[in-house]
Order: sequence, then structure tokens, then C-alpha cells
Amino acid sequence: MQKTVTFGEIMLRLQPPSYERILQAKSFDATFGGGEANVAVSLATLDMNAAFVTKLPDNMIGISCRNELRKWGVDTGKIVFGGDRLGIYYCEKGASQRASNVIYDRAGSSVAMSSSEDYDWNSIFEGVDWFHFTGITPALGGNMPEICEQACKAAKQKGITISCDLNYRKKLWSREEAKKSMSNLCQYVDVLIANEEDSESVFGISAPNSNIEGGELSKEGYISVAKQLCDTFKLKKVAITLRKSYSASINGWSGMLFDGKNAFFSKEYTINIVDRVGGGDSFGAGLIYSLLNDKSSSEAIEFAAAASCIKHTIEGDFNICTKAEVEALVKGGGNGRVNR
Amino acid sequence: MQKTVTFGEIMLRLQPPSYERILQAKSFDATFGGGEANVAVSLATLDMNAAFVTKLPDNMIGISCRNELRKWGVDTGKIVFGGDRLGIYYCEKGASQRASNVIYDRAGSSVAMSSSEDYDWNSIFEGVDWFHFTGITPALGGNMPEICEQACKAAKQKGITISCDLNYRKKLWSREEAKKSMSNLCQYVDVLIANEEDSESVFGISAPNSNIEGGELSKEGYISVAKQLCDTFKLKKVAITLRKSYSASINGWSGMLFDGKNAFFSKEYTINIVDRVGGGDSFGAGLIYSLLNDKSSSEAIEFAAAASCIKHTIEGDFNICTKAEVEALVKGGGNGRVNR
Amino acid sequence: MQKTVTFGEIMLRLQPPSYERILQAKSFDATFGGGEANVAVSLATLDMNAAFVTKLPDNMIGISCRNELRKWGVDTGKIVFGGDRLGIYYCEKGASQRASNVIYDRAGSSVAMSSSEDYDWNSIFEGVDWFHFTGITPALGGNMPEICEQACKAAKQKGITISCDLNYRKKLWSREEAKKSMSNLCQYVDVLIANEEDSESVFGISAPNSNIEGGELSKEGYISVAKQLCDTFKLKKVAITLRKSYSASINGWSGMLFDGKNAFFSKEYTINIVDRVGGGDSFGAGLIYSLLNDKSSSEAIEFAAAASCIKHTIEGDFNICTKAEVEALVKGGGNGRVNR
Amino acid sequence: MQKTVTFGEIMLRLQPPSYERILQAKSFDATFGGGEANVAVSLATLDMNAAFVTKLPDNMIGISCRNELRKWGVDTGKIVFGGDRLGIYYCEKGASQRASNVIYDRAGSSVAMSSSEDYDWNSIFEGVDWFHFTGITPALGGNMPEICEQACKAAKQKGITISCDLNYRKKLWSREEAKKSMSNLCQYVDVLIANEEDSESVFGISAPNSNIEGGELSKEGYISVAKQLCDTFKLKKVAITLRKSYSASINGWSGMLFDGKNAFFSKEYTINIVDRVGGGDSFGAGLIYSLLNDKSSSEAIEFAAAASCIKHTIEGDFNICTKAEVEALVKGGGNGRVNR
Amino acid sequence: MQKTVTFGEIMLRLQPPSYERILQAKSFDATFGGGEANVAVSLATLDMNAAFVTKLPDNMIGISCRNELRKWGVDTGKIVFGGDRLGIYYCEKGASQRASNVIYDRAGSSVAMSSSEDYDWNSIFEGVDWFHFTGITPALGGNMPEICEQACKAAKQKGITISCDLNYRKKLWSREEAKKSMSNLCQYVDVLIANEEDSESVFGISAPNSNIEGGELSKEGYISVAKQLCDTFKLKKVAITLRKSYSASINGWSGMLFDGKNAFFSKEYTINIVDRVGGGDSFGAGLIYSLLNDKSSSEAIEFAAAASCIKHTIEGDFNICTKAEVEALVKGGGNGRVNR
Amino acid sequence: MQKTVTFGEIMLRLQPPSYERILQAKSFDATFGGGEANVAVSLATLDMNAAFVTKLPDNMIGISCRNELRKWGVDTGKIVFGGDRLGIYYCEKGASQRASNVIYDRAGSSVAMSSSEDYDWNSIFEGVDWFHFTGITPALGGNMPEICEQACKAAKQKGITISCDLNYRKKLWSREEAKKSMSNLCQYVDVLIANEEDSESVFGISAPNSNIEGGELSKEGYISVAKQLCDTFKLKKVAITLRKSYSASINGWSGMLFDGKNAFFSKEYTINIVDRVGGGDSFGAGLIYSLLNDKSSSEAIEFAAAASCIKHTIEGDFNICTKAEVEALVKGGGNGRVNR
Repeated sequence: MQKTVTFGEIMLRLQPPSYERILQAKSFDATFGGGEANVAVSLATLDMNAAFVTKLPDNMIGISCRNELRKWGVDTGKIVFGGDRLGIYYCEKGASQRASNVIYDRAGSSVAMSSSEDYDWNSIFEGVDWFHFTGITPALGGNMPEICEQACKAAKQKGITISCDLNYRKKLWSREEAKKSMSNLCQYVDVLIANEEDSESVFGISAPNSNIEGGELSKEGYISVAKQLCDTFKLKKVAITLRKSYSASINGWSGMLFDGKNAFFSKEYTINIVDRVGGGDSFGAGLIYSLLNDKSSSEAIEFAAAASCIKHTIEGDFNICTKAEVEALVKGGGNGRVNR
Repeated sequence: MQKTVTFGEIMLRLQPPSYERILQAKSFDATFGGGEANVAVSLATLDMNAAFVTKLPDNMIGISCRNELRKWGVDTGKIVFGGDRLGIYYCEKGASQRASNVIYDRAGSSVAMSSSEDYDWNSIFEGVDWFHFTGITPALGGNMPEICEQACKAAKQKGITISCDLNYRKKLWSREEAKKSMSNLCQYVDVLIANEEDSESVFGISAPNSNIEGGELSKEGYISVAKQLCDTFKLKKVAITLRKSYSASINGWSGMLFDGKNAFFSKEYTINIVDRVGGGDSFGAGLIYSLLNDKSSSEAIEFAAAASCIKHTIEGDFNICTKAEVEALVKGGGNGRVNR
Repeated sequence: MQKTVTFGEIMLRLQPPSYERILQAKSFDATFGGGEANVAVSLATLDMNAAFVTKLPDNMIGISCRNELRKWGVDTGKIVFGGDRLGIYYCEKGASQRASNVIYDRAGSSVAMSSSEDYDWNSIFEGVDWFHFTGITPALGGNMPEICEQACKAAKQKGITISCDLNYRKKLWSREEAKKSMSNLCQYVDVLIANEEDSESVFGISAPNSNIEGGELSKEGYISVAKQLCDTFKLKKVAITLRKSYSASINGWSGMLFDGKNAFFSKEYTINIVDRVGGGDSFGAGLIYSLLNDKSSSEAIEFAAAASCIKHTIEGDFNICTKAEVEALVKGGGNGRVNR
Repeated sequence: MQKTVTFGEIMLRLQPPSYERILQAKSFDATFGGGEANVAVSLATLDMNAAFVTKLPDNMIGISCRNELRKWGVDTGKIVFGGDRLGIYYCEKGASQRASNVIYDRAGSSVAMSSSEDYDWNSIFEGVDWFHFTGITPALGGNMPEICEQACKAAKQKGITISCDLNYRKKLWSREEAKKSMSNLCQYVDVLIANEEDSESVFGISAPNSNIEGGELSKEGYISVAKQLCDTFKLKKVAITLRKSYSASINGWSGMLFDGKNAFFSKEYTINIVDRVGGGDSFGAGLIYSLLNDKSSSEAIEFAAAASCIKHTIEGDFNICTKAEVEALVKGGGNGRVNR
Repeated sequence: MQKTVTFGEIMLRLQPPSYERILQAKSFDATFGGGEANVAVSLATLDMNAAFVTKLPDNMIGISCRNELRKWGVDTGKIVFGGDRLGIYYCEKGASQRASNVIYDRAGSSVAMSSSEDYDWNSIFEGVDWFHFTGITPALGGNMPEICEQACKAAKQKGITISCDLNYRKKLWSREEAKKSMSNLCQYVDVLIANEEDSESVFGISAPNSNIEGGELSKEGYISVAKQLCDTFKLKKVAITLRKSYSASINGWSGMLFDGKNAFFSKEYTINIVDRVGGGDSFGAGLIYSLLNDKSSSEAIEFAAAASCIKHTIEGDFNICTKAEVEALVKGGGNGRVNR
Repeated sequence: MQKTVTFGEIMLRLQPPSYERILQAKSFDATFGGGEANVAVSLATLDMNAAFVTKLPDNMIGISCRNELRKWGVDTGKIVFGGDRLGIYYCEKGASQRASNVIYDRAGSSVAMSSSEDYDWNSIFEGVDWFHFTGITPALGGNMPEICEQACKAAKQKGITISCDLNYRKKLWSREEAKKSMSNLCQYVDVLIANEEDSESVFGISAPNSNIEGGELSKEGYISVAKQLCDTFKLKKVAITLRKSYSASINGWSGMLFDGKNAFFSKEYTINIVDRVGGGDSFGAGLIYSLLNDKSSSEAIEFAAAASCIKHTIEGDFNICTKAEVEALVKGGGNGRVNR
């Protein structure tokens, strides 16, 4: 089995039950999530060997987080324990015209405060085929940009494929900081996942006449963005997720994979949303899985889009679904008939 | 009041709360359900005298099941207690492109292991007007095909109308077994309820050029299926449910009644689904109710379709709704204004 | 900060969880609500000084209700304690073709049995800018019509703007009683909120060829109704809510404001409904807020419609949302992207 | 099977979950209960034929209540539907030094407003062996004292044994009213159930030097009270429940049966309380069951005390337990070993 | 009405439902609490005018916290909004031999990072009679020791009575730091609340031969500690809580008040614990209430002990109980009879 | 780290929330448990390398069970997938005089129907130090007695220490069957765990004058039983759990270890029970842990008794507690003071 490693922050996700607002809540559903951890769980549920690297506080909250990852089959053996706290994000689910809200309370987390000494990349990357991180990891500040580069260098040396999801978070760093760090890190990256909005925010790369709020980019626009990214950073592949935000309840969803030459668009799903957080991460995992398993570009983008379509119907950050379910959707399922 | 009897298995239904997947569940909502029991509850809530016949284990689970039926007004006086266990089915509710999943754990149930001696049909059918069962009952195996035939014979002798819902379950028996048993039993049946898929699976009776997955049968196709069934088994009436599975969240729903000569199609409802399990059973009950109350064919199919439309908005197997609610929908309600 | 006073009944709202029917419920979610209280909470969450006047029983239920209002920032200092009970309404949430049901159990409530002596309007209206009540308040019977008139007179004397939401409740009084009382009270009113259905029920004022059940009134029809109301009662403004009830799950929603001369229609929202109870009240509050803050007629109706659109996505009677959220929707939000 | 009838009010019981106070509650657990209904359910779960007579509102709340009784096997065929509302009681569970609180909201209930014409006692008492009511029923006011007397007379004429639980409720009537009514009704009673506190409140009958708050009455005191009651009303039997209220969490519990000559004391249980509401009613049912089944006085009091001991460990008003469980406790169980 | 001010941190309290451990939790009950806020809520529910001063983040979590305080009647008008986050504490409820666990995640909270400029003590203390804080407030670090002293000085100048609960938290500061700060602040204090353990930890003041773990201090020992504290800091009064920790489920609880000359011991309660967090705070509030209302020393200690006894039976940090309930317990209640 | 293997059945445990009875339940809390799995989880949470061997159905229920074990750190790599179903047990929690009830629905489970080919003991026992099973495993019938013997033989050959918990289940097999099988298997066993009741049931070995129901065996009696067991089966050690069942809410609990020569009794705990299921298994795990870590007999029995004391305070079959918590209790904790 091929081995993957993802590296980043995982947080406690606190969410009022159902459609309650935070101001109405008397309890919070407690799950865990974070871009790179979500990818690891997706890969593990797709039966890959998926290690997640992070630093967790050595208390019941940190251990609970580790246990949850372990439950889904993630290899947690390289997780470091120490530091002060697990970051938190409060998530309020939107509906119809009311948007979902996320409040981050992640400053001072064990991983954000971690140091280079915490991670032995040589050991971590032993026998590994793929390394994935997102733009959130360096954005955590402290030593994290440096640590990310150390990880990338170590991976590169071992010939490991590196993927990165741009994932710009404006509350974590400025566009300038992001551009500087990500431009540096992208030189190690083989496969970049982005959307047109982040591409514009971080690198100033956009398509002519794009209108992002409305989600109305033309196919040509997406291809143009992908091409520019490819050229700028010498990437092998660029994947873009295409979300049409009709409302908090209904979205259009598809993806595009550009292999340096050609662009492949997946079919588009109109989704009644259960939980859209982690949609992009499940797309990334679907893509990594596909590429590691030698699917063609067109198969890969269909698999990634279908996997992430299913994610939108599942509560929590994690895409708890099987390979068979994704494949069934790719093959034309999705009509919702009961499996008896 | 006219009396009905239904006979079959009722199971404990275990379902994760809300849209949780089984792999995420920490508790299960516990209800009871099964094709024939669902029909009995529907008839009872429509103020009919509805007895349900089955065998339940003589423990708290079996008694709990009996009590639940009693709560909804079903006559439970003919239920036999004994045997080892109540069958279970785990039900995971789907959403959008993710289908609902059902896992059966019903082998060895008290009713499936029951014997002819458990049921005194002469006494059970005392003063009864209508007998209903489904294809699931003989599919339970053991002595059940034989017992079903004994029930049919006893009903026939007393001049009781017999209806059957074809309900093919591929996990319970093969097409060959189903065909053999159901062909035999259908000779006693007056009113057959089916859908085109089951008709094809069990009897090989289909319309030309049908495309069942997509739910795209033409009106002529349904009429053709009904006519063939009528002719083959000398049925008085055949009713077909017409489901358009757009997704696990949204379905089109209507019904057709063929009275041997003419076909009557109900209006079609586009439904935001709360729970579609038991939809067919509520249709059957609506039909039985209508026919027992001398509604015309066109009224009957509208009533049955409206009743089962409402079922899709109600949690659990049972169609907990009143005659007045069904009639209001038939008369053009369904706009969802609040009844104050 | 400008001060508002609303006067009326607040009830305990008991609702089965999720989409359960009352007949299935083993617990009730317990919130509080009532037309005028809902307006007060909306105004308070929009950062207005909002007092609510009522009479509550001096027991844990009444105190719980007071505390809940206090929580949302409503000024509860003028609430009178005494009498026998808090009125209750049971609310069963509908879905798709199944309508929501409301069962009132409000007879004999402390406020319905209250007397003129309970309320010192001179003190209550000290420094107040706006007084709001609805047609439900006089419909409670007993001394309430008289008390409403006393309140209106006292408000008028102090030069306070008075608004009224027609809100006809056929279970509380007949059309004749309503017409008599409301015709009398409307002479004090400056701003009337109504829908075409209530206008017809109470005053017999309707547009030609209207079809209310279907919600198909033409723009001209609404203007005609507003104009007639304005002329009949010498109103300054009339606002009308325009609901298109497609089903219990999906509604169209917009509003119209007529300023005596011109009519202003808001944009129309297609809403996936979470809870539509209190929709009209949140519209009223949005309107009052806008007019007190010198918005133009066209701004006011957009703000009111957006505020009440958001209400439909929030559980409970109260519109728990901020000014910023409403303004964002007015400005073209509503696409449901996550606020991170 | 011998038949029993009980007559009185059943209410909706609303209780915050777990040990929450009403002021903290965001939902209420919803069950049903009332002295005579509790007795009926107990008798039905002890496999007796138990009819309950009352009047319920013809809405979903009333039907829900009927269905719940039906679930437990109570014969609900003689329940009358009509009137305005189901009475409610809010119940807050105490713990340790904090007492449980009950808030009644029962005025104007369908049964309290019912009239003599609602009940056809001749038909109700057809084939009945035992009639039971409590002091709460006449205390409901209106026509209820008169209706109770009509019931008692009809029962007497048919030779039916009559039992009454004194159950004084100071919020429903004064001592004087209670004395007048109960003295009249007690002339029909064969078996009176009381505790020393109610005996004192209603009839002024007490033991010398009793200290009720502390629960410290001597055996001689209880016998004296029973004897006086027997003599005053020509009763055949008097049963007294002996509660030692150490705290809201721990009680001592036993009972005494006086057969006119001799007094029989049950063993005393020290109980970790789950829910003590309905404890007295389950005692009454245990006694009625025992006497109808020809147990000796000493067996009867042990059975009644054991049944009601178990009630204290069960949530809700109803004593959901089997004959076998009661008998096992009588025989020396109660050590709490797991039944595997 | 007399006015009180308390100053300190309030946190979000996250607790697994019932007796679940953190490692088992899938949701957290969410309440708010903190020593000084708990005192403010207690005083407000005892109908005092109680202001709480703190700094909260200006997001939905901070506003939710403010709203909750407002719900209970606390004056929140002096709360400052700003800073980064609300502190959190995870609380796992123990049972029997398993202790409760608290995990603090409070570093970097808005209040801990606040500056002198955030608080205008002259305005805050306008018309105030009593100022209360605990040893936790200066222990938060940053500018808090200095701000506490500023508050004390301002209070002293206005002749406001000052009370302090020693509340040593070893995770917040060392014994040395605590001694230095608290020795300084205690010179402003009139009434000190402590237990023998904290007295020893902070000031090294203890009774001869004390055995704190076992809770076995003699009456003389407690008096000795109080006397030493009084003498050292020129206090008017010292109150000590006396907890006997038999297990996490059962505690003995009483209090002692030393008025400089005489010591008054309350009666001792044996408590079946629902939630013991906040027990000391409710004691402090009971004491402040008593002293502000001119109760005698012996009445005051009984009231304080009874109030805090009740707190142990209530979920959450806050002592949601009425004056009447406390007084009833003082007068000999606590037998747990139902209040009907 | 030393490695352990346990082998047996794990079931889905379905339990009504809180103290609800099965007849009242509308949902079931869903956990997993079974004697040998419980031991494996305990060992894993004590930081041992603990593999659990069983056969699970290859569906979402079986995978969910595997994931749960994985979450707690159990090595699930040797679990076999296949067969028809996961066994179930319904568990109703008792209180006070009402006993807990367990209903087994385990017939036909994947593990009970498994064959010798399913388990490759040579591979399973690679590098293993300790093998543990209980009397339940052979009692499952089918090939299980034979498979157990194969496992024992393989373990013996590799010099692995073997422990067995007698655990007689009368619903699974007769005393005669148990005696035959267990006598055979015990010849391989080094450490036997039993209680006096099972010893009597299976082997007819008892102490003179024992009174098991009352839990009143003398120390000498226990020693006599242990000695007889040791002698009969050439055991190295016998451990006995000593439960005093005062009620379903309160138990006395201690243990005894007999090393062939001397008997060591632990201290006795009086426990307020949260959940006593799995108490014996946690004792076994504590013992295995102690013996594998070279604790003395007296230390070992104290550790085992303390570990299982804590289990009684934790919901579910699994003893989710840390080594540090057990050690703290051994050292004199248990007073329930909050760990802050």
C-alpha cells in the first residue's frame, strides 16, 4: 500500500446542534477537523496508508483528538505531544440566505507554537510516496513557514510527490505574507489545488473579467488561471474546485484538473447541503488517491469531484465514505434510491 | 367498521440521528417497522379496524414492539409470542447524492421461524373484510411460503378480499424462488400492488424499452405492465407506484391504478423527503382504505398517492397522519401554509 | 437611542424536535414567542431600546419567560407579574406537502385576564418614540380591546408613532368582532402592516380577482389593497408581506411598502425554510427599525424583507440576527458562502 | 380476567431533562400522568383489564394522551373526547436537599369542565369488579363532585368494590371543601388509601403526638389513624403509605394495611430515588391487584409496597414493571444483581 | 436596593453530558462560569443589584456570555468588549471514587490581556455598596494584579465594603506569587473567604495538626486559622467553608464565620452531589447577601451554608435558586418532599 | 512493550438513555462490549500493546465496531471479517431495588459461527506475552470450544502465559457443558479469575456455608475456593472478585489474589454505581497488567481492585481510565476532590 503524509493543524470543532445559532446554543457538537487532517482521514477511509503529523497538547482534549484520528484509520504514530492547547473553531451552520459562520480560536495552539525540533522529517518520510499540506500550515505563524520548508525539502530529497492546497485564510495572514511564503513553498510543489479566489488573493493570478462572488467564471477563465499557476511555479498539475454558491442550502459543485496541457472538467453536481466544511479537502484527497492509483486525468477529476460531492452530505469535517460509494456516484448513481 | 388483517414481519429499526452515518453514530433512534405492519398502522390511523398478525419474542423487545402497535390503534390480540428474537434493520438516511442504506439483521426472527401451528386462520379471519400481505412474508423462508398459502386459502374460503404488495427483496430470496412462490400465491390475490422494477424481477413482466433506474417509464409502459399482471394472475386490480428518484432529498411521486380495463394516474408530487421508507406501504394502505370505502378508481389512486406523499414527510416507517390531512392534500393543499 | 414599546401576549412554544409530529413526540423544545414579543426581540437585537409590556404569572414559567426576553436585551422592567398562567402554543413543523400545525392553549392567560389597572401607560410611554401592537392583542378578549385603546390614546397624546400588524386569528374572534375592534383602533395607527388575506378577513378590503391560497396576487392588487387601507384609516404607511407558499419547505418571500403615494416592492427571496413562524413579526420589526432610522421607503422595505428572509432560517419565534447580517443580505449576499 | 375502572384527570407532564431546573430548561420531557390514570396503567401492566375514564380534548394532545394509555394496555374505549384543553403539570426534579417542584396548569381542562351527560356509568361499569378514584377527582370542581357521587352510586348498585385514595391537594380546594365532599363520597368506599398527613388535612383525623414533616409516626400512631378512618366511614380496609423523607434523593418507604381488626406492616425499603411522583398510585394499584387476586392482607401489603418501591426507580408517573419483578422483590430481591 | 460589583474572568464551560468522560464525549454541554461571575449571578437571583465587570471578546461567543449573564439579571452594562478570546474550561464530572477533572484553556483571554484603561472604576463604583473579587483575578497575570489594586483603592475611597475569596489556583501562579499579590490586596479587604487549604498554600497559615486531604480539621483548628488571618490582615470577618470529601458523589458541607471575636458554625449538610463546581462562590454570595441585609453572624453563616448546599444540587456554575428556597432550607427543610 | 492477545466475542450494546426502561425507550445508546474486548481496551488504555481477535461481519456495523476498538488503541489487525452479523445485547440500567436487565441477541454472530480456518494462531501469537480468554468464548458453541483449545495449545507451545475468566453464562450453555469444556481448557491456564458463584456453577467448587445471593462469604471461604481451584487445575494463581450487592445503585467491591500459597485481599470500596457492566473484565485487565509488570501479589490485587472500582463509575463496557488514575486511587484517593 502506498503511503501518504499530511502535516498541519487539527482543531476541535464546536457546533450548535442542527440549525441553531451560536447565540441560541446550550451545547456544542464536538468533532475535530482541519485541512490536512481531513485529507488524511479521507485517504485512510479510501484504504490508503495515511499518516498525519501535528503537535497536540498532552491532555484529554489532545488525546481525544488523537483517538478520533486513530478511529478512522489514520496513522497517528508520528504525532508529537506537548504544548498548551488544541485550537478551536466554532462553526454555525447556515441555511438558505443565511451563511455559515466560523469563529477561530486557534492562537497559541500546540502546533502553531511548535519548533523544528518537534519533527524528524527523515523518519516521518520513511517509505512515503506522497506529502500534502495546505496554505494554512505556514499561515499559523511562528516557526511554521520554516518547518514547512524543511518538510518540503526533506520530501523532495526522497523523491516524494508534494501537493499543496492554497487555502488562503485572511484572518491568519496578509496577502503579502501569504504571497511571500507560498511562492517560496510552491517551488517544491508538484500538484497545486486552488480555487480562482485564492489564486487571486495569494498570487494575484486571475482570469480576465472574473466575477468570483457570483461564481460565474467561464471554463476558459479557469483554464487560464491553471495555466498561469503552472507556468509560474513549474507545477505538474493544477486542480481547481468550482463551487456555485446559490445559497447556504444548495450549491453547484464540480472540479477541473489541468495537467500542464489539457484541462479536464468533471460533471457538475447540484447538492442539497448537509455540511460543506471540508468539501475542498475531500476533493484534494480524492485527487491524491486517484493520482497515486494511476487514474487518468479525466478519471481523477471525476473521482475527486464525486468524493467531495458526497462530503457535502456528511456531517463534520471528515468525508466518511467508501471507495465503492465514490465509484458508484462516478458511474451515474446519485439518484438516491435506497440500498437495501 | 370494516376489518382488515395484515400478516408479516415487523422489525426493530435502528437509525442514526439526523443525517449521521452508521460509522458516526453513538446512538440509534429506535422505531419499529415492516411492510405489513406499516399497512396496519396506516389503516388504524385512518380509523379502520386493523389487526396485525405476526410472531414476536416474549421479551422486552417483543413486548415493546407490541405496545407500539397498540399505541397506534392496531389490534394486536392475534399476535403470537415466542421464538428467539425480533429482526432488526439498520437504516442510514441518505441526502442529496448519497443514498440511504439499509442493513438487514433479520435471520432467525420469531416470525421467520414460526410454524403453521402458530396461526389459527379461522379465528384470525373471523368477521374480516380484507387480508393483505407482501412478497416479503413468504421470502422470510422456513414455513412462511406454506403459511402464507394457508392464510390465503382460509381468506378465500371466507370471501375476504386479498391484496398483495409484490415487494421483491433480493437479499431474502432469488428471482427464481420469488417467481415460484409469488406465482402460486398470486392466484389468490384480488389486488396486486407493484412497481415496474419488482414486476420485472419476480415475473419477468416489463414494458418495452423501460429504464427503471432513471424512473423514466412512459404511461403506456405502466399500463402495459399492469395489464400483463392482470391477465397473468386474473387480478381485479393492479396498482403501481411511480417514483422519480432525482436524489435522496427530492423525489417525484405518483401512482397508477388499473382496474382491468382503464388506468387512472394520480397527480404527481415533487417531495422534499424527510423519510421515504414505508412510502409504498402507505400507498397500499391508502388504496385498501379507498377500495373498502367504495371510492372510485380515480378517487382511490388520488387518495393513495396523497397518503403516501405525506408519508415521505414523516419520520419512521409508519404514516402517522389523519384521513382529513390526506383529503386536504387531495383537494389541492400541499402549499404548506400553517394550520393555526 | 430611540425607544420602542410593544404590548401583547407571549406564550410558551412547545414543539417536537426536528420533523417529529406531536403524536410521535416524547419531548418538546421549549421556547417563547408571540407577535409583539417577537418584534421587541428583533428590535433589541438590532440594538434598539425595546420594552415589552405584558402580564406574566408569578411562577417559574413566567419568570423563565421574562429571563429569556432579558437575555435578548429586551427591557422587561414594565412587565407585570400576576394571574394564573402563561398561554401555550404547540407547534408541529411541517415539511414539503405536510403543513405546520399550531394548537393554541392560551385561554385564561395572565395577560388575557389582565385589567386596565395593570398598566400605567403614562409611565410606560415615558420617553418612548414608537408603539407597536398587533390584532392579536385585542383579540385576546376580556378587557384587552379597552386596554389597547387606552394604550393608543396615551401614545397619541405623547406624539408617539403607532404601528399595528393586522394579524387576524380566526380562533380568537369572529370577523365581525375583529372589524369592530380593529376599525376603532386603526384610527390611532400611523403604520399598518397587513397581508391581503387579513385585510380581506377583517375589513373586507381586497383587490379585484385575488387568489390568496395560491399567493398569486398581482402587484397592482397589492397596491390597490394598500391604497384602500390608507384611505379608510388615514394611515401614513401600509406595508404588506408577500408570501408564495410553494410548500412547507420552500416559500417565496418579499414585501411592499406604500407611503400613501407610491409603492415600493422589495426583491423576492426563494427560501429553504427552517422555521417560518414569526416571519411577519421580523418584517414588522425591520420596518420599524428602518423608519425610526430614517431610511427611505425603498431602503426600508428592502431591510424589512431581508430581515424576515433571515428569520425563516432561524429556529424559534425570535429573529436572532444582527443589523450587519441584514444589511449584507440587502447588499446582495445570500449566496451562503461561509464567513470565516 | 377481572375488570377495573378508574376515573379522573390525566395531565401532560412537562419536565426539564435530568436535574435541570425549570429556569434552565430548553426542552421538556413530555409524559402523561394523573393519580387514577397511573393506577390504570399499573393494573394494565400487571395484566389486569383496566379501563380509564376521563374527558380529553379532541386535538393532537388529547389523542397523544389516549395513544399513550393504549400503549400500556389500558382500555381507552370509554374516554370521552371534547372540551378545550388537557391540563398540564410542570415537574422539576429535586435532588438531595433541593425539593422537587410541581406547578399545576390544569384549570379549564376538558375533564374538569365535563358534565354528567359525558359519562354513562351503566355502560362503563358493565362487567366491572372494582372502581377506583382519588380525592383529586372531586377536587377538580365544577360538576366533578356530583359526577363522582353518580359514579359511586352506580358502582354500588352493581356491587362493585370501590377504593379511594384520599390524595388531598391544597391548591385545588380548601380543607373544608375537601372534608364535605370526601365525607360524602367515603360512605360508598370499601377500601381507603391515605397517609396520615392527608387524613389530618381532610378529616382532622390524626394520631396523638404525630410529627408528619419528619415522618416519625409510631406504628401505633398509624394504626390509630386507620382505625379512626375505618370506624368513621365504615370502611372494610384502610391502607397507609409510610414515607420517610430523608432527602429528595433518598427515602424510606413502606406500607400498612388495616383490615378492620389487624394491621399489617410491609418491610421497609431505603430507596435511591429516580422519580417519586406516582409512588402512592403504584401502591394503590398493587393493593387493588392483590385484593382482587385474593392475596392475604400480609401478602397484599408486601406486594403493594414492593410495587411502589420499584416505581421510585422508574421515570415518569407510570409504574412500568411486571408482576414477576414485583414478586421477585417481595421474595427478597432488591440486591440489584444484573439479570442476564 | 443595594448594589454590588464583582470583577474577574468568566469562561465558557464545556462538559460532556451526564457522567461521560471527555474521551467519550461527542458533544459538550455549554455553560458559562467563573468565581466572580458566579457570585454576581447568585446575588442577582437573590434579587440584589449585581454588576459584573470583565472584558469579553466582541464575537458571538462573548455576546452569548453577556446574554447569559443578562438572562439571570446581572447588570452587564460595565462589561468591556474587545480582545481575542473567551477563556474555556473543560469539566468532566466525577462519580464515586472517580474525581471530577478540570482542564483550563484560559491563556490569552480578553480579560487576562486587558489593561488599566479598560476599566473606569470611578464610574463602575458609582452608588455601589460592596465590591467582591477572588484570588483568581490577580492570578490571571498581565496587568491584572495592578488592576485589582486600582479597583480596591477606588472602592476603598468610596467607602465600599470589599470582600475577597482566596481561591488559590496552582496552575495560574506559584505560592510565592500568590503570597505577594494577595498580601498586598488583602490590606484593602474587609471580609475574607477562604478554606484552610488555600490559607496554608497562600499565606502559610494553618492550624496545628491539620489533615486537609481527609477534611478532618477540628473546630478549634478552623477558628485558629480564621483568627490568624484576621490578625494578619486586619480583617473584619473571615468565613471558611468546611467540605468533607467522602467521594465525588457524597460530601459533607458546612461553613464558619469568624467576626473577629466569635466563631459561628452552620449546621452540616450531607449532600448527594449533582454539581459541586461553584459551591464556594455560592457560599460567598450567600454571605455577602446576608451581611448586606444585616443578618446576624449566626444567621449569615446558616444562610451562606444553605445557599451553597443547594448549589451542589444544581447543574452548572450558577446557583439558580431563590431566597425563599434558601430560607426554607435554613428553617429545617431539606427533607425533599415535593412542593405541589 | 509487552504484548497481549484476547480472543472472544464483541457485541453491539444497546441501552436506553439514563434510567429509562426498554419499554420506554425511543432511542438506544450504542456502544460495543464483550468480556475479552473489554480486557483488551483496558490493557490498551493502560498503554499495553493489546490485540483483540474476533470475527466481525463485513458491513458498517462490523466496521464501526472495529473502528471503536481502534480508537482506544487496540490492535485490530488480526480481526477477521466475514459471516452474517454482530451479536447484540440490550442492556437496561437498574437503580436501587430494580436490577439491571440484559437481553442477549447473539446467536448466529460471525464469531460464534466461525471456523478453525479463520484464525492463524501462529501468526496471531507472534511475539506475544500473554493470552486471555473467558468462559464465554467456548460457550458460544459451534466450533468455539475446539478453537479455544487450539488457541491455548498454540499459546502454550510459545510459552505464553494464559489467563481465563470463568464467566459462567447460563443462557449460553448448561453447567454440564461448561464443566466439560472448562475443565479441559483450564489445564492450559496459568491464572484463573473467578467468583465464588461461577466456581460453584461450573466446577461445583464452593466454600462451606456460603451465601452467594447475599454476598456474605467469609475470607476463609474465598481462600478455600481459590485453593481448591488451584489444586484441581494446577493453576499458578487464582483471583476472585468480591461484590457485595447492596442494591443496583450501591455495591461493595474488592478482590482477592491467591498465589498458590497466600491470599491477598484488596481494600474494599463502597461504590455509587454509574455502570457496573464490565467490572469483572476491568479487574482482569488490571491483574494482567500488574502481573506483566512484575507487581507483587498485594500490589497486583490492589491495582486490579482499584481499576475495576473506577470502571463502576464509567458508562459503557470499557474502562476508559489511565494508569495514573488507578494508581492515585490505590494510594488513597477516591475522596472525589476536583482535579484542577
